[in-house]
Amino acid sequence: MQNPHPPIALRPKTGEGMTPISFQTDPSRYRHWRLDTEGAIATLTLDVDPSGSLFPGAELKLNSYDLGVDIELADAVQRLRFEHPEVRTVVIRSGKDNVFCAGANITALAKATHQHKVNFCKFTNETRLAIEDASENSRQRYLAAIGGPAAGGGYELAAACDWIMLVDDRRSSVSLPELPLLAVLPGTGGLTRLTDKRKVRRDRADLFCATEEGARGRRAVEWRLVDECVPPSSWDDKVKERALALAATSDRPSDAHGIALPPVDTAPHLRLDLDRERRQATITVLGPTELPLDLAGIHRAGAGFWPLAMARALDDALVHLRFNEPGLGIVVFKSAGDPARVLAADALLEAHRDDWLVREIRLMLKRTFKRVDMMARSLFALIEPGSCFAGSLAELAFAADRSFIHVGTRAGDNRPEATLALSTLNFGAYPMGNGLTRLATRFLGEPDSLAAAEEATGEPLSADDAEALGLVTAAYDEVDWDEEIRLMIEERASFSPDALTGLEANLRFPGPETMETRIFGRLTAWQNWIFQRPNAAGPKGALKLYGTGTRPKFDPERT
Amino acid sequence: MQNPHPPIALRPKTGEGMTPISFQTDPSRYRHWRLDTEGAIATLTLDVDPSGSLFPGAELKLNSYDLGVDIELADAVQRLRFEHPEVRTVVIRSGKDNVFCAGANITALAKATHQHKVNFCKFTNETRLAIEDASENSRQRYLAAIGGPAAGGGYELAAACDWIMLVDDRRSSVSLPELPLLAVLPGTGGLTRLTDKRKVRRDRADLFCATEEGARGRRAVEWRLVDECVPPSSWDDKVKERALALAATSDRPSDAHGIALPPVDTAPHLRLDLDRERRQATITVLGPTELPLDLAGIHRAGAGFWPLAMARALDDALVHLRFNEPGLGIVVFKSAGDPARVLAADALLEAHRDDWLVREIRLMLKRTFKRVDMMARSLFALIEPGSCFAGSLAELAFAADRSFIHVGTRAGDNRPEATLALSTLNFGAYPMGNGLTRLATRFLGEPDSLAAAEEATGEPLSADDAEALGLVTAAYDEVDWDEEIRLMIEERASFSPDALTGLEANLRFPGPETMETRIFGRLTAWQNWIFQRPNAAGPKGALKLYGTGTRPKFDPERT
Repeated sequence: MQNPHPPIALRPKTGEGMTPISFQTDPSRYRHWRLDTEGAIATLTLDVDPSGSLFPGAELKLNSYDLGVDIELADAVQRLRFEHPEVRTVVIRSGKDNVFCAGANITALAKATHQHKVNFCKFTNETRLAIEDASENSRQRYLAAIGGPAAGGGYELAAACDWIMLVDDRRSSVSLPELPLLAVLPGTGGLTRLTDKRKVRRDRADLFCATEEGARGRRAVEWRLVDECVPPSSWDDKVKERALALAATSDRPSDAHGIALPPVDTAPHLRLDLDRERRQATITVLGPTELPLDLAGIHRAGAGFWPLAMARALDDALVHLRFNEPGLGIVVFKSAGDPARVLAADALLEAHRDDWLVREIRLMLKRTFKRVDMMARSLFALIEPGSCFAGSLAELAFAADRSFIHVGTRAGDNRPEATLALSTLNFGAYPMGNGLTRLATRFLGEPDSLAAAEEATGEPLSADDAEALGLVTAAYDEVDWDEEIRLMIEERASFSPDALTGLEANLRFPGPETMETRIFGRLTAWQNWIFQRPNAAGPKGALKLYGTGTRPKFDPERT
Repeated sequence: MQNPHPPIALRPKTGEGMTPISFQTDPSRYRHWRLDTEGAIATLTLDVDPSGSLFPGAELKLNSYDLGVDIELADAVQRLRFEHPEVRTVVIRSGKDNVFCAGANITALAKATHQHKVNFCKFTNETRLAIEDASENSRQRYLAAIGGPAAGGGYELAAACDWIMLVDDRRSSVSLPELPLLAVLPGTGGLTRLTDKRKVRRDRADLFCATEEGARGRRAVEWRLVDECVPPSSWDDKVKERALALAATSDRPSDAHGIALPPVDTAPHLRLDLDRERRQATITVLGPTELPLDLAGIHRAGAGFWPLAMARALDDALVHLRFNEPGLGIVVFKSAGDPARVLAADALLEAHRDDWLVREIRLMLKRTFKRVDMMARSLFALIEPGSCFAGSLAELAFAADRSFIHVGTRAGDNRPEATLALSTLNFGAYPMGNGLTRLATRFLGEPDSLAAAEEATGEPLSADDAEALGLVTAAYDEVDWDEEIRLMIEERASFSPDALTGLEANLRFPGPETMETRIFGRLTAWQNWIFQRPNAAGPKGALKLYGTGTRPKFDPERT
């Protein structure tokens, strides 16, 4: 397991023996953001330390960012939800006079491996979706207050906010210059938010994306690229006014006390075992050992309340595997504990769902399970004797590409027989990116099976029952279990990692598409392709030559 | 312009001086398919000539196919609609004893350039979508009668049919072995149709796609991979029975006479000008010079009726550009003729929309405009004096990434001022892949603009009116026109072709997703990425080493 608290500025080299990237931070250690709150309004100020890149040699000029900057943003977005129930509007602004944000740092991007590039985009996308989730579901609104240029990822960050304000002067602008400058796409949802969220007319979007200098002033408003344009003289007043107006649309409590989010404490909640030879990581989630009795107890427990503590540990393990262990292509989910206690935790989450903190905890679980769906690793769930895949934890089995349940006990093993159990939370609390629950997605072609599963809520289901209900891929008894699982994992490890990534990205998200699935399924897939093409990433490609003064040389053939 | 009738077996090398691939064929020249009709039932028999590959050195064993085989299939699907109004069910079967179809030929695929691979997948996808369009909208049902293995593209072809029958013997099976055998994805919609059309449970889909030998018998039915499994003894009777049952669901006329589809006659309907230095192709669509007066006249004119003749010429030019001119990254649409006559043609298409032939012509126009949307080229429409972008032809302007209209006449040019005109057909006849009309897609964020456009139906709109209604990107007068257009085209030609392809694939399809947009947007994008990765296409990749006996060597890093 990774050291939970190494300093943030580590090199993004990955694999055995390398120093891992840590995702743990807090405002006292931020190098690039400042978080201030004043009543219902928080301000997140981006003021990137140019010398603070994860990539030695990259200088984070003009508020450009790399993963390290975004890890702090993700942390701040998370803390605002849990530590600041009173905050109803978050204003994102720049701490520098001359620029809002220049987007992802190109030198850092050019130095990164293909897998780091792709995972960096995925992480930043998840953070921007978390901002939109905070607005929609936690009612914590986001306001982008843009002074100076907001280019590329800088504008994409603004596009994740509810409202974009732009100073009406000659130097403040929004732009997506990736195509003309870098021969890649805006990679953080920019294209999808242009067309689907802001509904910019497509020929205008085309013009905008081909124009290095972007748009400003009235045209930016007319084209719906920003929501309003404000003269410098009234800027501060107007930002305050808008922030308060957004706050008025929120239902967050003004008299509640936040809970502190201390560093993630992994050991009590999760074991991470790495088997590099088999290319396998095993995540064993440990069920609750104690639970509060009521809502007051949940608030007292705070970050120690099992569902939240478990989700934070799981989330941390997932991003660790993505960035620090790219060679481990298979993630096996196991669990250990008392299924009844997991169901008891779910019952607390359901009984107090209207409480602000419980709402946050459910949303955190939702986002963590989405992070599971987005793992570009093969996911298997093994439901063994002594496991506790019940309710919320059963989502891990439904997120897996395949799940197996052990029939009966094992010789010389006194752990109870494996069961699977459903709770109310499996039927609505944790929608996937496609907007459906994992069970509804699973049973897209079998509405009767979905209804039958719902009727079985609350009961511990035996291996045979779980299989008959279609809730697992297969059930094996002791005679077959070890051999079948071993063969499956060996087979999986023999397949092309790239083809598996593409296969899983298609099979995991059937049914409806949303802006979120479009960002990951359409935009990201095209971006990954472009990241592989010599026109962007080759020795004469635009990414490599950016800033050198040499023009890239493009192969003109279209596909 | 290409020679309209070169023999089909040409080498797929492309660019100036190379022999182009022709898409013109007819049943008398098929080398790989047989088309037989008997009353309401047609049979399409796949019997690939192993020596008939477009790629010298590739042997099309076991009914495997390359583009040449699919060009014949596309031709047959098209002819069945127009030449055989009486056909209500098309049975697809194999002419070989030991195999249904082994999918795309790997040797041919390995020899192909990246752009040919991608365009081959796109063309085969369009053909399978044309099969589904024939069933849904022309009520010509498709039945796949599988005896022997249907592997990869063979099963994907079946999945495009309404009903899949499988012989219940030990040698007949369906499979998608791309992942284990070739380290790529099923590239012809297989994954999307598994999850979204056949609604196969996702863990079963995962198992199926990882199993080289696929599924047969009862399991294939249980997993919804096929619709029924039939013992060899009752096979022929049962196929006939199913074909008749499908025919009974059709509204196609039994007493109508088809129209013949002679070779495409381009010159009267379309000019194609290639400017390789500027990387620009200009397609000038010529408006109708004569039109029939009534429905009987439409039938008499047949393939000579302007909308159909124009659509066929345009369609042929589009696929020609894709395969034979990959270096031309920009397609400019122009038109010349009398807009009133285009509107008169539209009026005929609208007045007689319930006639089977008129229905087919409208559907052919719809498919052709979709082919435009799917061009991986930058599309510009220039609405100049003397042009006829009215009604159906205005779709080309709405399909373009940008469109420009000329204000006023030009000195020394007596052609009438440019206008744009809408007809009823712009508001429903030609949905894009996303299910919306191009105008609804354009005005996704402006329902009022859509309503205003609809109110302007039928009137010739001046440049100023068209611009005010948001129907064009911009209007320029004579002073600016030439310079603005020249600069735009030069700028476009300077951008990375790959980044443009990704940008356009994102901006052209906002709003809802359908199985069709998912196939092109999600599945194809991932496949393109995989096609670039060394694990598939590198010297030690699976595609390159297939059939050599040497195992591929994979980089284990996941992205």
